[in-house]
This record gives sequence, structure tokens and C-alpha cells, in this order.
Amino acid sequence: MGSQYKDLNNNASNKSPQFGIMFDIDGVLLRGKTPIPQASESLKSLLDETGTRFAVPAVFCTNGFGLREVKAATLSEKLGVEVNPDQIVMSQNPLEMFHEYHDKWCLVSGPEHDGGSVKVAESLGFQKILTIEDVRKAYPYLDWVDRARWPKETVDDDDSFPTIEAVVLLGEPVRWETNLQLILDVLLTNGKPNRPGEMNQRTHLPVLAVNMDLLWMAKAQTPRFGHGAFLVCLENLYKKITGSDLEYTALIGKPSEVTYEYSQKLIEEIATSMNITELTTVYAIGDNPLTDIYGANMFNKFLQRKRKDIAFKKEEIKKQMEKQLTRSPVMPRAKRNGISDRSAKKAIRLAADNHIALHGDITNVRGVNRCTSILVCTGVYKAPEPGTEEAEADVDHGHRDLPYTAEMTKADYIVEDVKNAIDTIFRVEKWKPLYG
Amino acid sequence: MGSQYKDLNNNASNKSPQFGIMFDIDGVLLRGKTPIPQASESLKSLLDETGTRFAVPAVFCTNGFGLREVKAATLSEKLGVEVNPDQIVMSQNPLEMFHEYHDKWCLVSGPEHDGGSVKVAESLGFQKILTIEDVRKAYPYLDWVDRARWPKETVDDDDSFPTIEAVVLLGEPVRWETNLQLILDVLLTNGKPNRPGEMNQRTHLPVLAVNMDLLWMAKAQTPRFGHGAFLVCLENLYKKITGSDLEYTALIGKPSEVTYEYSQKLIEEIATSMNITELTTVYAIGDNPLTDIYGANMFNKFLQRKRKDIAFKKEEIKKQMEKQLTRSPVMPRAKRNGISDRSAKKAIRLAADNHIALHGDITNVRGVNRCTSILVCTGVYKAPEPGTEEAEADVDHGHRDLPYTAEMTKADYIVEDVKNAIDTIFRVEKWKPLYG
Repeated sequence: MGSQYKDLNNNASNKSPQFGIMFDIDGVLLRGKTPIPQASESLKSLLDETGTRFAVPAVFCTNGFGLREVKAATLSEKLGVEVNPDQIVMSQNPLEMFHEYHDKWCLVSGPEHDGGSVKVAESLGFQKILTIEDVRKAYPYLDWVDRARWPKETVDDDDSFPTIEAVVLLGEPVRWETNLQLILDVLLTNGKPNRPGEMNQRTHLPVLAVNMDLLWMAKAQTPRFGHGAFLVCLENLYKKITGSDLEYTALIGKPSEVTYEYSQKLIEEIATSMNITELTTVYAIGDNPLTDIYGANMFNKFLQRKRKDIAFKKEEIKKQMEKQLTRSPVMPRAKRNGISDRSAKKAIRLAADNHIALHGDITNVRGVNRCTSILVCTGVYKAPEPGTEEAEADVDHGHRDLPYTAEMTKADYIVEDVKNAIDTIFRVEKWKPLYG
Repeated sequence: MGSQYKDLNNNASNKSPQFGIMFDIDGVLLRGKTPIPQASESLKSLLDETGTRFAVPAVFCTNGFGLREVKAATLSEKLGVEVNPDQIVMSQNPLEMFHEYHDKWCLVSGPEHDGGSVKVAESLGFQKILTIEDVRKAYPYLDWVDRARWPKETVDDDDSFPTIEAVVLLGEPVRWETNLQLILDVLLTNGKPNRPGEMNQRTHLPVLAVNMDLLWMAKAQTPRFGHGAFLVCLENLYKKITGSDLEYTALIGKPSEVTYEYSQKLIEEIATSMNITELTTVYAIGDNPLTDIYGANMFNKFLQRKRKDIAFKKEEIKKQMEKQLTRSPVMPRAKRNGISDRSAKKAIRLAADNHIALHGDITNVRGVNRCTSILVCTGVYKAPEPGTEEAEADVDHGHRDLPYTAEMTKADYIVEDVKNAIDTIFRVEKWKPLYG
């Protein structure tokens, strides 16, 4: 766990924490609307001496839909700890980083609850939002399953309607037949859905999809459809009609890498505001091996790969720059050999970083090199009976593009509840709570 | 085409027609609500001398949904020929033959237009009909995508609700998320959808599905979702959730065999009422190679296979019976050798027929041994430009269970329109119109 390198890094010697925590909410801190025992106490142990602010950078990451302000207020009220909206990652929040789509005409499909999809899309930075209802009104002969909604009189298409440039799927809508039909129309016509479609085209407009949970546990005995179920329909209709696979420009929400990157970015910003200069580990606490743990493990692999890539690319670029510098006839000899001076080093680092920059404007804090996963038993996951083996999933309920492997769902730690999870982190990080 | 065997079979010598005709409606006789030129004239050439009744057995077979009385009235009005409801095959009509389900509790999913699914199911003989809405009301926590429909107060499940015994899918419903969720709940719980589901069960309740058209041409430039699109969603969600394939007890509507059998049965009943004692050929006229022609060809193959099977089985049974008769010690010698007497022959024939009886109570007229397909160019199909080759389908828009082959979509005859189709039939059958 790397703890052996941190003997001096505990707050007894007045250091800042070199770690951040990413909490899943449902099944870890709350069950529905009810707090899980010791969740409040656990969060309080992360506060500073005054008990008013977090001393350890923490974010709360859910696949739920809605406005982060609302979720922050709920958490604050239920858990008795002041949670800031900036600490919340709703499933759609990483879309904030996709600046290149914010000024494009985006068809937004999603729920109407919790503020609704337009409000949520606006909060993410989208400026040219078109809804399914807008498309229905502009092209009245497309939504054709429900005959009760057929136009009563002859109506014209609205030819001034903008050409759609991207499709943003924020969550499961109602009337799936309408959304499925219009989204496919937009994809098959490159954004002008009253033109004849291309049944066997190979490429399509960018599709950004948020929250790929197939099912989720609500009040019924069996789990209910999530947005992942809608995506199964969309993917398979696209495949049936065109013969090709629907390709997502981005899949967002746990277990996707983007969501972990975004959460890490938030943790870094919080750390910066706390004057923490170095972070080495992010801990992800969750109750669902298929989303929370799978995602954390995948992100950890990504961090390892990235570290290797950076090292390799820096070395490559350094070599190239050295070559250029030593070849440059106008460069004074002193400078040519002076490759070790600060500005050249910085240039090399920046050039190397540019090569590994990812979604949108993410450039991670350089120090973080590990995401450690902690599985709790207060939600979806139940520990196997003593003496029995861990059951492997018979059926892969994860998304098509993120295939199940048993290894990816194995957590670094399995503990009873969030209290034990925090205790584990504190032990590894040699951290002592400051409050209470 | 077998016409060489029928030299004497023309109505100049006062014989009855030995053929029947199965018409597709849309693209052959009507386009939307408008008659196709010469359609009326063509139908009139099938009437008897009085111009009031059909002299040639004819049925009208559509993948549309609704009550046959309504369709018969429309055809009569638009085409100026009195069409009887008994001549109509709506997509769901073959379900009349599935007697074993008529007294079972069936969950019926389908459209609300044209009489609605309950009325249509009743007209087919179903006596214990449960709707999606009934299930929603009995189990208020299942339909969970649309939060506007969540119960406002705590409500109890209705434990007296009958255990569902079969699922009948009559056509595309509205609010697909609701129907998909509840149908899956019923399948995963063997008919008691508030019990915990079996995510990886291997078998499920019988599913009867009507009309598998993926898309259909309406007013928009591009075809719209048909019931086949709904089935794609259902099949793929079932597969994703359980890991197994959804298996249909029956797929009904063109191009399924059942629909052709049913149409043939109607033609036979009509022929009987006209005192026609022998039918050898059924002609299927359609505009869609993927449904009308594919189905006719498949049915023709089935008829060939069946004829061979009957011959083989009759021979087998005859041998067995001869064996038994010659072995029987109490049978007088005269009778033992008298295997050629009438009653024994009849017994053999009945026993053989019982071995090949199909869906429900269908026993086909023995004579029909050929289904000839005729493709017209007034609908979906367009003849290739002279000098160019017939384009093969890039993408299979047919149902999962009826895979596309180029051979199956090749018609025995390709003609301009329904008039040419009828002329072709008359020529082959040496038949002269009696009216007009």
C-alpha cells in the first residue's frame, strides 16, 4: 500500500494529508433517505479542529441525476456535516470538462425530475440545448408510435431548425419510443432528421452518455431499469438498423475513467484551496463491486499506465530536444549543453504533459499515482458466508464497452462499513482525526 | 409452375378454380388510404357472373393491427368490391388457432388504437386478459422510470392478482419503458412480478408475438418503428439481464409460417363454402420481398417438406399396420389380407395426418402443395434499372429468428402491378374472368 514510504507523513508532525477520499453515497452513507449508522460520525472525523471544514479532501460521487446543490443540501442535512456543492459529483458533472461541445447544438435526452435535463445541461455549460420535445415540434412526422400524438392537421417541418451537432444522453427519459426514434433519426441523418436517413452509414455524430447503470435498487423487490437499460435499447436498435455498432464519444458516470479523473480533479482543487501541495493516493469507498470498485481499479490501472507513459514520453522528448539543441547552430555552446537549466526542463515537462492530456482540460496533479478501492458491506455487496468462496457474476450487467472481469471487481480492502473504511485509511496514512 | 398438368382445368369446361389468392394490402391494393390504379378492376375480375361474390377464393393479409371488420369495410369502400371480414387476416388473427392459451391468464401488451388490445384479444378468443395497466395497478412499485407516476402514498401490492401464465405481444405499445419493465418482471418471476426475480433462469413463460416488422413507411421520409423495434429492445434487455435468449413460443404475422398456414386455412374454408373440392396452388401477391415474398417462399418450402413427410409417414404407418394385421391371430385371414379395404385406408390416412398436424387445429386441405410468390413494383420494391443487378440487402431488417437469405426473397414472378399479377395467375391457371 506504499505506507512504508510515509513514516514521516502523519499529522502528529503537522503535515497535511497526502490523500483524498471519494465516497459513493447510496449504500455507503445513506440507504435511500436514511443515514447508514456511523456515516455521520465517520464524516466528522475528516473535519478540522473547528468541526466546520474538511481537513481531508473529500468528494461525494454518485451515478444519480440532478443538481449538485440539491444533493449537497441533502447530504448536509442527513449527515450533519456541511457538504459544499463543489464536493459533489453527480453522474453528469464530468461533462463540464467537454468544452468542445458547450457551444455546439446538442440534442439533450434525459429525465425531467430533479430540475430536469435542460437545467442540468445548462449548469454543465451547454449553451445550445435542443430537447427531444423541440425536435418533435420541428418535425411533426417523426414521433409516430403513439397515434394519439399524430398531428390532427397537415403541418410543415421547421426548416430553420438548427442542424444538431452532438447527442447528449443525461439519463433515462420517459416515453422511450419517442427518444429512441428521434435520437436514431438524428444519428442516421447527421443532425437533420427530416432528411432521408443513411441506413448503412459507418460513422455518426458524437454521442456522450451519462450513467450506464443497467438496473438500480428502488422500492420493489427486484432492481428497476436505469439509464443503462435505455442504452441497451438504443445500441441494439442502431445495430439492427445500420448493421454497425453505436460508438460513444464518451461514457460518463461510474465505472468510467472520466468520472474518476473528474473526481480526482475536484479533490485536487479542494486540496489546493487547503494549501495541500502534494497528494499521492485517492481512496474510493463504495458498496458496488461492478461500479465503484471496477471503476476505481480501472482508474488505478490508468494512473499506473499514465505514470509509465509520462516517464517514457519525457525521456523521448528530452532526447529530441537535446538533439535539436545540440544541432542548433545559433545556440551558444553554453546553452546547448545547458539542457539542465530550469526553463528547458519546464518546457520538456509541459511538452510531455501535453502529450498525455486527456478529456477536455484535465491535467492531473502530478503526485497522485494510486487509487485504492475499499468495498463496504452496507449496500449492494454482501460478504460470502464463512467457508464459502466469492461468487463470480454469471451475467455481465455492466456496459457493453466495459466488459466484466473478476479481477476488476476485487477491492483492495473489504470492510464492514464506512467507519471501518475510514479507520483503514487513517491507519495506512498514519492520520489522526482532528475533530471530536 | 406445374401448369402443364392442368390442361383440362380451366373454367371453359365448367370446372372450379383449383387455386386461391392471398393479397397483401398496402403497396398492392392501397397506398395509405388511396387505391392503387387497376386494383379495383383486378379484384372485380375474381368475382362470379353476378359481380357480387368471389369466384376465386381470396384473402387479404396485412401485418396491421385491429379488428378485421374495420379493415373489410375499408377495403370494400375503397375498392368497390364487397370484402367479407372472414377474408381478412390481420397480423394477430392466427392467434385464434392457439386455443391452449385462450383460457390461460395472459398478459396482453399492444396498441390502444383501432379498437385497442383488449378488444382485439377478446375477438381472438382470449378469455382471461390482463393488461400492462392492470399489472401496474396491482404492483405499484414496478413501473419506476417515470417519477411523475410514482405512488404519492404507501400502497400495498394486490396479492389476489392472478398468476400470469403467458405473455401476448399484439403490437407496439406506448411508453415502452413501462411495457418492457413489466413484461421482463413477469418473465423473470414466472408470472408473479412482485416476487424476487431469477436473473439467470434458463426458461420462461410462453411468449406469443405478433407482427415483427422492424420499420414501416408512414408519412415521414424515413421508415418509422414497428413492433419489431419493440421486440429488439425486449430481446436484448432479456439477454442482457439473464444472459439467455428470449424464446418465442410463436412469432405471428408475415413472414412467419403460421400466418401463411392460417391464410391457407381461410382460403380452404372459403373454397369449401364455394363447393370447391380441390385446391392445388395458393398465390401470394405482395410488394415487400422481406415479408411477403420471404414468407411465401418459406411456406412453399414447408409445403414441400410436409408433402414428403406425409408420404413417408403414410408408408411407415401402412407398414406397421400391415405388420399388426398380419400378426393378429383373431383377425380372419380374409381381413388380414384385406388391407386395401376403404376403412383401413382411411385409418391409415388419419393416423398419418395426426402425425403432421400443426399449430392448434390446422389440418390443411390435402391437395395444396404449392405457394407461388408474385412481387409487384407498386410499393416497397423497385425493380433494378435495366442492365444493373438486383441489390442484395446490406443489413438484415428481418427478425432475429428468421435470418435473411437472398434466395428466400426472390419471387417466382416479378410484375408491374396487381393487374399483371392477376393476369399471370389466370394465364398459368387457364382461368377466364367471369364478371365484367
